[in-house]
Amino acid sequence: MRARLLEATVELLVEKGFSGTTTTLVSERAGVSRGAQLHHFPTKNDLVVAAVAHLTERRGEELAERAAELPTGSQRTRAVIQMLGDHFAGPVFTAALELWVAARTDAALLEAVAPLERVLGRETHVMTVELLGADESQPGVRELIQATLDLVRGLGLASTLGDDTRRRRKILDQWALTLDVALDKEKQ
Amino acid sequence: MRARLLEATVELLVEKGFSGTTTTLVSERAGVSRGAQLHHFPTKNDLVVAAVAHLTERRGEELAERAAELPTGSQRTRAVIQMLGDHFAGPVFTAALELWVAARTDAALLEAVAPLERVLGRETHVMTVELLGADESQPGVRELIQATLDLVRGLGLASTLGDDTRRRRKILDQWALTLDVALDKEKQ
Repeated sequence: MRARLLEATVELLVEKGFSGTTTTLVSERAGVSRGAQLHHFPTKNDLVVAAVAHLTERRGEELAERAAELPTGSQRTRAVIQMLGDHFAGPVFTAALELWVAARTDAALLEAVAPLERVLGRETHVMTVELLGADESQPGVRELIQATLDLVRGLGLASTLGDDTRRRRKILDQWALTLDVALDKEKQ
Repeated sequence: MRARLLEATVELLVEKGFSGTTTTLVSERAGVSRGAQLHHFPTKNDLVVAAVAHLTERRGEELAERAAELPTGSQRTRAVIQMLGDHFAGPVFTAALELWVAARTDAALLEAVAPLERVLGRETHVMTVELLGADESQPGVRELIQATLDLVRGLGLASTLGDDTRRRRKILDQWALTLDVALDKEKQ
């Protein structure tokens, strides 16, 4: 029942945005009584924060699965960047974006969202370093990894406004080439 | 009076977000009667779209002024990138972000915001190409300029959640170095 409530919440954040996501709609969508819902999640903020944490965890598992299937050799960097680009253009990012923007002007929500965001940011950074085999002890490498993640975040924001995947693909193609040169990677 | 209404709207978008920006609050803040406000802007959407268009125009003028003062020579790329980074971390971006996210789930608002966003995107792109003296006929250059703008958009989004300027500065330092190498610029 908890999982059904959380899935319904994420769906509604994507479909109707933060202000359109009401606890009544969530209980209807999940087929859960209001009483049961309030028992699990007393407030809307409890619900939306738990929902995004839940989905991010599930998505983290998906990313790990996809990471295991990445090619080695000269195509690896491009594949890693595509995986990140897809992640930041998907529904998890959209739901998180709704929360971030709402949290900007809602102190209670910000208090709940900020620690989640910090953990996620760190985990994604560590994963990207590992997947690229990057050496952060080299000058500039840490900043290039961060720039890569900020780039896909910017592309993800554009994609929520209907930016096309063709534009995104060409940018990611070029960035993979530039990043490989910048990281001075040995091609295997 | 029109300008006062638009300024008040942008201020309220930044302070209270899209859902917290009501036409009543705007008329109070601007010191304009409800009747006069409705004469200029019949709906909230009319008001918020005009407000962001207005501020973007003003900010475009500021950018042009700042562009005229950019250094030439080896520090130019870094200065251009800083100018863009500041732009996407300021109140214009925050107000626009509120509109974009609201427009994602509001078809009428999207219809008004999308053309504005396309024009702005093109203008910023053209300005960046000119400021960097980049040659878009060379392969990959167009994509690197787009990546630069998507990067500063991603950094802008992070900054609304309290991301620190120190992190941003280091990333922009590195991006400027990488971009200069990638664009194969002749240092003057």
